[in-house]
Amino acid sequence: MNGAESLVATLVDRGVDICFANPGTSEMHFLAALGGNPRMRSVLCLFEGVATGAADGWYRMKDTPASTLLHLGPGLANGLANIHNAKRASSGMVNIIGEHSASHLKYDPPLNSDIEGLARPLSHWVRRAQSSSTIAWDTAQAVNQASAHPGQIATLILPGDTSWQQAGETALPPAAPAARKAPSAARVEHIAKVLRSGEPTLVILANKATRGAALERAGRVAAATGARLGSQFFTARIERGAGRVPIERIPYAVPQAQAFLKGFRHIVTVETGEPVAFFSYPDKPSLMKAEGTQVHRFVEADEDSAAAFEMLLEALGATKTAPKLQERVRTAVPSGALNPTSVAHALAAALPEGCIVVDESLTTGRESMGLTMGALPHDLINNLGGSIGYGTPVATGAALACPDRRVFCPVGDGSAMYTIQSLWTQARENLNVTTIIFANNSYAILKAEYANMGAGTPGARALSMIDIDRPRIDWLAMAKSMGVPGVAVDSAEAFHKAMVDSTREPGPALIEVRL
Amino acid sequence: MNGAESLVATLVDRGVDICFANPGTSEMHFLAALGGNPRMRSVLCLFEGVATGAADGWYRMKDTPASTLLHLGPGLANGLANIHNAKRASSGMVNIIGEHSASHLKYDPPLNSDIEGLARPLSHWVRRAQSSSTIAWDTAQAVNQASAHPGQIATLILPGDTSWQQAGETALPPAAPAARKAPSAARVEHIAKVLRSGEPTLVILANKATRGAALERAGRVAAATGARLGSQFFTARIERGAGRVPIERIPYAVPQAQAFLKGFRHIVTVETGEPVAFFSYPDKPSLMKAEGTQVHRFVEADEDSAAAFEMLLEALGATKTAPKLQERVRTAVPSGALNPTSVAHALAAALPEGCIVVDESLTTGRESMGLTMGALPHDLINNLGGSIGYGTPVATGAALACPDRRVFCPVGDGSAMYTIQSLWTQARENLNVTTIIFANNSYAILKAEYANMGAGTPGARALSMIDIDRPRIDWLAMAKSMGVPGVAVDSAEAFHKAMVDSTREPGPALIEVRL
Repeated sequence: MNGAESLVATLVDRGVDICFANPGTSEMHFLAALGGNPRMRSVLCLFEGVATGAADGWYRMKDTPASTLLHLGPGLANGLANIHNAKRASSGMVNIIGEHSASHLKYDPPLNSDIEGLARPLSHWVRRAQSSSTIAWDTAQAVNQASAHPGQIATLILPGDTSWQQAGETALPPAAPAARKAPSAARVEHIAKVLRSGEPTLVILANKATRGAALERAGRVAAATGARLGSQFFTARIERGAGRVPIERIPYAVPQAQAFLKGFRHIVTVETGEPVAFFSYPDKPSLMKAEGTQVHRFVEADEDSAAAFEMLLEALGATKTAPKLQERVRTAVPSGALNPTSVAHALAAALPEGCIVVDESLTTGRESMGLTMGALPHDLINNLGGSIGYGTPVATGAALACPDRRVFCPVGDGSAMYTIQSLWTQARENLNVTTIIFANNSYAILKAEYANMGAGTPGARALSMIDIDRPRIDWLAMAKSMGVPGVAVDSAEAFHKAMVDSTREPGPALIEVRL
Repeated sequence: MNGAESLVATLVDRGVDICFANPGTSEMHFLAALGGNPRMRSVLCLFEGVATGAADGWYRMKDTPASTLLHLGPGLANGLANIHNAKRASSGMVNIIGEHSASHLKYDPPLNSDIEGLARPLSHWVRRAQSSSTIAWDTAQAVNQASAHPGQIATLILPGDTSWQQAGETALPPAAPAARKAPSAARVEHIAKVLRSGEPTLVILANKATRGAALERAGRVAAATGARLGSQFFTARIERGAGRVPIERIPYAVPQAQAFLKGFRHIVTVETGEPVAFFSYPDKPSLMKAEGTQVHRFVEADEDSAAAFEMLLEALGATKTAPKLQERVRTAVPSGALNPTSVAHALAAALPEGCIVVDESLTTGRESMGLTMGALPHDLINNLGGSIGYGTPVATGAALACPDRRVFCPVGDGSAMYTIQSLWTQARENLNVTTIIFANNSYAILKAEYANMGAGTPGARALSMIDIDRPRIDWLAMAKSMGVPGVAVDSAEAFHKAMVDSTREPGPALIEVRL
């Protein structure tokens, strides 16, 4: 067994059994090891941003890390934007970065760069493997790191000679304990006191608190105390729809967020902090709560929300209270012109039970996502990092994680172009992904932001840097080029039909929504 | 005038009059400033790797830096791979990175990251602008840095408030002096002595020494002394073809490079070092020269090769010697099957005088590029950094720099997919670029490298990570999707005809070469 084989064996032994890869010459032994280990699934991506985004999507649905294989510093660099997004979503990930042998590095060959330097700003843990006999230990440590709560970005640099030299048997560190910390009793009692006050309170849920037992218990707390449940505008994954505990979304735009938050005397945070504006604007504040609103940190990012809410329910004497659940809202199939409302209604009517929505719609979709609250139960995934090009890769990884569930990926045309290579992997792996391109031929969100920034109305030359209508992207040709069947729609009923049609056969589909 | 306007005005005052951009919310004032300054040309790119690669292509042809506008840390990250390639090619570049206002950063908003940390590993100079009143000074410094010899990567971080606050008049640092250092007389005399010895000598030319007066004078030295002129396998830009001083190319593969270098007693380096293997292999050396070959550093990277060769000619008493020039080789239009030889012959027959070849062909094209030595005079540009996805962006920038010259970009299918968004900018700007896709449906170079690495013959599972034939990319659909006319060819004569046809009309074209 060589170092590469030892690494791959350790990954699968520790539960990391998928690798999103774009290999190069320095990773040939790793490729051989991937190919030689039937327990490891290798997924080829035609750009590293697809690989790291897919690993993020995998984690969002599985709560366990995937691995990536990237080619030296530049390969890592290409994956960094979606590593940033994954980090902000608290997704764990094990990145393996191929590297020259130490003996070769001193000659500064063309692909040489400071890999640690590139990795550190966006990784929680970086290590350069020193020998094939200790690579298994390093790998187990990387998996432990990535598997922590919250998930961590672990980056392991693999020199060529470490890869190809023989590895012996090595002792491994114990697997990271699954148990999570709970808040102190004093903190729980403080929050109970706030909630008992009856003063208007918003409980902001994030990360693992927006699903499963934690969400259900948060619903009981809300029902017992009259507190409202909210989320930041973007959340890693929300279980929502009919029968789930509903969560209100704090608006994106600063004035609307301020208006929403104004009425609350208290904000209680769960695995998150108080609401912060996405960008800085000349005449708008960074913190969006009203003056006088008190912020109470209930569950820290590394603590267990389900346990915390159980403690809180006991402190409140409300363990028997039933949560209020979202009612099913049957949305009629809309017809006529496509606009944010009809688009959202079509989505609400079409979403099948148990589907996953990876949302990277900006102008068209995201503001009206509330209209799908009463749809059949589904999971909603957002981008917490703000770097566009996250949607189609995350949808790719989510579909691999959940092969029995259809993934819908509504995405703006500008964002989709960033990592459009995802379509090829979706076709290759026959993934159940319906990509919905909102083709407004513009970075339309920027037109609003131009005014929000106080830059006035964009002139023709500034507009030409925002509009992407010259040439218009032919999305059906784009889909065809990578083996994905596509259809274009220009009415709400056609959009609804295309979504329903896309679920009838396995495999990917693309819908161009002509706005 | 606000900070953004001051920055843009300083760029154009200092000769940087093009900006390859993909803006976001934090760059709205910069966008307004770009739009408001008629001396600045703004070019929209749909992915940052296109922007940085295009800036590299601009520099290769102009010898002056372009600017890029990138959106915070992730936007910079997306551009890093082609910044790496540009750095290795000694291309100067001014990157402007939009950033949150300082007052907003402390809340760690979603797009926050350590921009300096991401920039430093691949920049020569990094600065965070502190105030709108000093941004002009910072900008002038950035341009000075980028304009040095060799070209430097200068990265200027622009916080939002620095962008939108008012700027006064500022004194500026003087422009960087154009004069370059020359080697010492003692060094020149030493090299003259080596050359006078009559022992077999290879003079390796790089960067600015492979064109213009430096190349012509190197040709005189070779004619006077019998030394041979060589280049590394990859060079920033070579003026070549009929009537130019010919340069031999050191092979890429280690055994072939060793065989080529074996006969030389001396290696004289000009703006480069001795030949180093691109990768480390288990049973191959890093340094490729023969034992006993002496390496003499003649011109350092920051010195002036033209002046150095003039001094050397005087020391040799050879100022009147004429160089041996490449003869015109008229290549018959090939016919029949496409293979590396017929492809190269078709290229040699088709290249029009004064065209630019940006070569990112790997398996199909690069090994036979020597067959175009006797074509009509042209410029050849290579990737020195080894990160794939450099070709189509660099071709985009080169075409903008030289609107009267046709750019040919032979590129492997795997490489083209990395930054395929370049096609859109080529269509938008109606650039004279002929993209030639060598569609072998594989990262074919890796099949050879798998064996070179001693990993044996790839099995089916490893092969599936090297072949990209499932699905096959439909290149005509891909071209159409972004508004570029395409044609597919499956014979040498059809390939030749398609190249010639592409030169008849202005604007981009794509040729799929079906291998």
